[in-house]
Amino acid sequence: MSGNTFGKIFKITTFGESHGVAMGCILDGCPPQIDLTKDDIQFELNRRKPGQSDITTQRKEDDTVEIMSGVFEGKTLGTPIGMIIYNKDQQSKDYSNIKDVFRPNHADITYQSKYGHRDYRGGGRSSARETANWVAAGAIAKKILQKEGITVSGFVSEIGEIKADIINHKEATNKYFFCDDTKLSELDSLFNNLIEEGNSVGAKLGVVVENCPVGLGDPVFEKLDANLAKAIMTINAVKSVSIGNADDLLELKGSEARDEITSTGYSTNNSGGILGGISNGDDINLSFIIKPTSSIRKKGKTINNKGKDVDLEVIGRHDPCVGIRAVPIAEAMVSLVLVDHLLINRAQCLDIEQKLPFSE
Amino acid sequence: MSGNTFGKIFKITTFGESHGVAMGCILDGCPPQIDLTKDDIQFELNRRKPGQSDITTQRKEDDTVEIMSGVFEGKTLGTPIGMIIYNKDQQSKDYSNIKDVFRPNHADITYQSKYGHRDYRGGGRSSARETANWVAAGAIAKKILQKEGITVSGFVSEIGEIKADIINHKEATNKYFFCDDTKLSELDSLFNNLIEEGNSVGAKLGVVVENCPVGLGDPVFEKLDANLAKAIMTINAVKSVSIGNADDLLELKGSEARDEITSTGYSTNNSGGILGGISNGDDINLSFIIKPTSSIRKKGKTINNKGKDVDLEVIGRHDPCVGIRAVPIAEAMVSLVLVDHLLINRAQCLDIEQKLPFSE
Amino acid sequence: MSGNTFGKIFKITTFGESHGVAMGCILDGCPPQIDLTKDDIQFELNRRKPGQSDITTQRKEDDTVEIMSGVFEGKTLGTPIGMIIYNKDQQSKDYSNIKDVFRPNHADITYQSKYGHRDYRGGGRSSARETANWVAAGAIAKKILQKEGITVSGFVSEIGEIKADIINHKEATNKYFFCDDTKLSELDSLFNNLIEEGNSVGAKLGVVVENCPVGLGDPVFEKLDANLAKAIMTINAVKSVSIGNADDLLELKGSEARDEITSTGYSTNNSGGILGGISNGDDINLSFIIKPTSSIRKKGKTINNKGKDVDLEVIGRHDPCVGIRAVPIAEAMVSLVLVDHLLINRAQCLDIEQKLPFSE
Amino acid sequence: MSGNTFGKIFKITTFGESHGVAMGCILDGCPPQIDLTKDDIQFELNRRKPGQSDITTQRKEDDTVEIMSGVFEGKTLGTPIGMIIYNKDQQSKDYSNIKDVFRPNHADITYQSKYGHRDYRGGGRSSARETANWVAAGAIAKKILQKEGITVSGFVSEIGEIKADIINHKEATNKYFFCDDTKLSELDSLFNNLIEEGNSVGAKLGVVVENCPVGLGDPVFEKLDANLAKAIMTINAVKSVSIGNADDLLELKGSEARDEITSTGYSTNNSGGILGGISNGDDINLSFIIKPTSSIRKKGKTINNKGKDVDLEVIGRHDPCVGIRAVPIAEAMVSLVLVDHLLINRAQCLDIEQKLPFSE
Repeated sequence: MSGNTFGKIFKITTFGESHGVAMGCILDGCPPQIDLTKDDIQFELNRRKPGQSDITTQRKEDDTVEIMSGVFEGKTLGTPIGMIIYNKDQQSKDYSNIKDVFRPNHADITYQSKYGHRDYRGGGRSSARETANWVAAGAIAKKILQKEGITVSGFVSEIGEIKADIINHKEATNKYFFCDDTKLSELDSLFNNLIEEGNSVGAKLGVVVENCPVGLGDPVFEKLDANLAKAIMTINAVKSVSIGNADDLLELKGSEARDEITSTGYSTNNSGGILGGISNGDDINLSFIIKPTSSIRKKGKTINNKGKDVDLEVIGRHDPCVGIRAVPIAEAMVSLVLVDHLLINRAQCLDIEQKLPFSE
Repeated sequence: MSGNTFGKIFKITTFGESHGVAMGCILDGCPPQIDLTKDDIQFELNRRKPGQSDITTQRKEDDTVEIMSGVFEGKTLGTPIGMIIYNKDQQSKDYSNIKDVFRPNHADITYQSKYGHRDYRGGGRSSARETANWVAAGAIAKKILQKEGITVSGFVSEIGEIKADIINHKEATNKYFFCDDTKLSELDSLFNNLIEEGNSVGAKLGVVVENCPVGLGDPVFEKLDANLAKAIMTINAVKSVSIGNADDLLELKGSEARDEITSTGYSTNNSGGILGGISNGDDINLSFIIKPTSSIRKKGKTINNKGKDVDLEVIGRHDPCVGIRAVPIAEAMVSLVLVDHLLINRAQCLDIEQKLPFSE
Repeated sequence: MSGNTFGKIFKITTFGESHGVAMGCILDGCPPQIDLTKDDIQFELNRRKPGQSDITTQRKEDDTVEIMSGVFEGKTLGTPIGMIIYNKDQQSKDYSNIKDVFRPNHADITYQSKYGHRDYRGGGRSSARETANWVAAGAIAKKILQKEGITVSGFVSEIGEIKADIINHKEATNKYFFCDDTKLSELDSLFNNLIEEGNSVGAKLGVVVENCPVGLGDPVFEKLDANLAKAIMTINAVKSVSIGNADDLLELKGSEARDEITSTGYSTNNSGGILGGISNGDDINLSFIIKPTSSIRKKGKTINNKGKDVDLEVIGRHDPCVGIRAVPIAEAMVSLVLVDHLLINRAQCLDIEQKLPFSE
Repeated sequence: MSGNTFGKIFKITTFGESHGVAMGCILDGCPPQIDLTKDDIQFELNRRKPGQSDITTQRKEDDTVEIMSGVFEGKTLGTPIGMIIYNKDQQSKDYSNIKDVFRPNHADITYQSKYGHRDYRGGGRSSARETANWVAAGAIAKKILQKEGITVSGFVSEIGEIKADIINHKEATNKYFFCDDTKLSELDSLFNNLIEEGNSVGAKLGVVVENCPVGLGDPVFEKLDANLAKAIMTINAVKSVSIGNADDLLELKGSEARDEITSTGYSTNNSGGILGGISNGDDINLSFIIKPTSSIRKKGKTINNKGKDVDLEVIGRHDPCVGIRAVPIAEAMVSLVLVDHLLINRAQCLDIEQKLPFSE
């Protein structure tokens, strides 16, 4: 209700303002006896860490996670896993230029209007810093998916108007960047121009889930695709999400778009691996679009907290494209949704042998 | 968990197989003393009713709602409102051609695999018939929005490759069809061809919310846009959902995409009325894409329940474009989300005077 | 939030005013492929039915349940089970004597004050009639418990100041009345006096769960005993609930009250089968106290809806002891709690072989 | 689902094993702009702190709370309030005598059986140490109740077989001990004997809520009394909970037990301030019974983790009566329930002027 809990059985509750003492997360509902170390979590946090490339934000966040509870002798206890990530870098920040103004296209104005009060030292809860919590919890979700043989791979397919020719999501996810080497020089020049200009661009990303079993998702209001859409739209700056091959749906006729079935499997996968809100055993694939970074150096019009017109240049470390950092975040959110549905599915359908009716 | 409840405070729980005895819905959490008659609900059900035009499904559904509880002397009691819509037309159906086969791109195969059992007389819970429940509940949500001066208007903007030039959502929503009269002859010929061919096309739709107050939506996991995305993706056949102007986000730079703020309001509305998951007081607009109808007469490949390859022609009444009927359904889902957030917002922020800081 | 849903995974949502069109219930989250007929449900409804003995209320309620959905070819579908019980007897009632006054110790005054409006023809949602919904859903829960070998037996142990000497809960539950035949003549005379006087008495009841597996219950806020306490306190007129042997806890020392453990099992069962909120494999037993029926013929002081003092005699059919009818209701509530925890436990702990460490 | 969240709108999620790194709590849904300092929370933690009297546990817990988020410039932000209480005393403990055995009447055996694994260094999540989280969150709830003029006062009424003659809950709650000075010498001797013997006794406690407004509680499954019963039964070692005057209900007739109403108010308060699950504007009073401390020095029979019979003396700091420490814990749980219902009530019934119909 209050909005800081995600998931039903395998669920996280998070806290933390970007410039407060710490970010933190409680993961509740994790099965007992899962092997888990701090390094499993730190590995994913490092993939997300800002400052690790020239084109992502320069904030030197250590993002060192500490496990407070729920793990004993290297295994989960089945009790809530408390995690803390202290904010080490926040003290040094000079926030005088954003304290009294509302950054355009940012949550400053809506937080102030809703709560009558906000932590003006940064984005507070609306900051992408919050996503460190999600990635920490997602790392634990991935451990469970791994046991089931399920993989979740994110990638970037478009940055501004530059489109990757071929996406190999398995390679892309490991490179932390999209893999289309032929486009690298174009990107280089795009980012150099953006940094010089103090400007930004949007991006399109994708996630593929392989080896997802049939049967995940609960009609009619906890459909797998609906929950994935919510999870992805929860990511900062995401404005659009699609399941399967949505781009072509206005051009294809029903006879072309339907994924015909044969005794050996589905002929195509326009549906993105989900039918009627339930995983159909094929790969799940989804894509989403992230708007250009709002906080940019290039001067823009806004108002101050007296409602008066002012010009604003946001000084400081900002990505020319926030989309790139969203890869591990999207993987985390998708992983959380999948584990939650895995556990829910067990609860209701344990006694059913869930299998596809393919004869071969 | 079990998936048949939508909403947190203002919430609906639904039941009903398309070819069972009845569809039904319990709306819980409705404020007391709201004026409500059966006609308020019937009006919206009639907007959704199949069989009302030549190009929507021929099923003669009466969709007559009966209020079982929660309303007394013309006003809501604050207690749960039980509603029933009996299935009158289902007995006559001949379902022998779909009993033992799985319609491609349909939920038959996932329901069978998940539950080991399904009501093969129709789509069961995956049928669009379920949406009658949503529209019935949405009609009550609309009564509450009306009191607050908030309007929710859906429209169709594209059908297959035909695109409306100008969308006037206020007119469109009342016509139950998109308003661009210049395209009517093109559409006529498209639908005639599709019916002849036994084929179908997809559609793109939109919803606009006007007069939405600032402050709806709860960061970080109950964002207004994330809940709208989930609500829309819950609608049968929807594969993509966007908030605001998502189509242009890969072409616009940050300095162009940000909605600058002036002392009299926002300069543009690329964000679709939501910032940081909270409504910003501007119009909310969203769009979504619906895949072509799966159940079509045109022969296609599939398997039967033994896993053997078969050909299938789905006989019977089906829309060449299910998108059109989704207008009142999308309005209902959006209305349910808005009222839920209105009530949640009251709970937490009652004592805050929520207003925008515009000086003029 | 809105309060008409009980359970987390195996959950019911109910509606219905006592003098409205119908009572109804949606059971969501029921596993698929459970054998279920209308008769299974009707059997429990008949055990609860008022009017079946001289001393329970004279209302001739048919309480005929109709299954609307979720069951197909004699098995549950895994989809929500909609059930309706039409109110057949309500039209004839003369409610003029309660319309404008608040029955003392009744919910009339709190409903009116909270909602500003109520269905004055009867108790509305506060009527015991609502419990028909619980018993209907509980009957389905019992089918699932039966498969697991778990039994739930309710009984009456005290009525007013008459205390049964020996309780054999297995016999008691089947007799629908407590089994201590030696007390029957005392009871007879008690009830005759009460009916003559237009008065009522309270009662103490118990429930025993046999063959409950170890491991049900989720610390720390979904403890099995806490959820049982809530379930029982939800029953109309219950004012006290105890788990295990609470009556003696102020007289026993720790060394006497603790249930020592041996290699063959627990030595005693003061804890009532629950430790730390988790079932310990021993019988679960609980007891509860129900206040005397509030609606009685004997004249009493109250106020009318203008706030003026008036005298009230409640005319009509009422039990001299509502406690007796609570037996099947309590069994239903306990059964709902147990099945919910069974399913939740599966979700989180599926891979754990849950067994007690007794060596013999 | 997973059990570590309490409340619906004003809700807490907690973590922490008694001998792990830290206990912690996230309070979500707190209204913005509530004045709050660390001292407000520390004050209540100090009331609960073990080791502050001779007869409560000797553990030297500092219980120093740190606020991690959700508070800025002395006011709540409306965002989640993260709190941490580090476990400082745990390293020194010698737990060899409980590592391989199951303490009788303790949760050791059920945690081990359910999860297959436990933190054997102490009670883990079943330890009363967890209640520090509740008291911390309850302190914030009390700040909100205070604004509304509502007070919550706990007290002890019986310890073992010693019964206080007169309870003045206002004084009792401030003394942290029950106020009946004439019984102090009896208690002194009781505790000395128990400490010598290595034994313990149970206790009976009460809570009174004054100035509670009419209208809190949501029928039928979120009744105020049912939620209070759950909250109280959630407290470690509680085995029985009663609302109002439950002790006399088997002796009183309906005409005596009903609280008659007059134009100036209720004549009596047997109902404990709640009718039909909704607060009726009178004082809410409840009582509960706590079993004798299980972990005692006096030798008892149990089994080890091989299932073999062993004798056990639990060495270490333990209370002869855990009941005493439950006073601030019960106040915290009751306060959490009340604030949650206050906020929920706002959401649904904001537009209703909720008032009692007394004319004078």
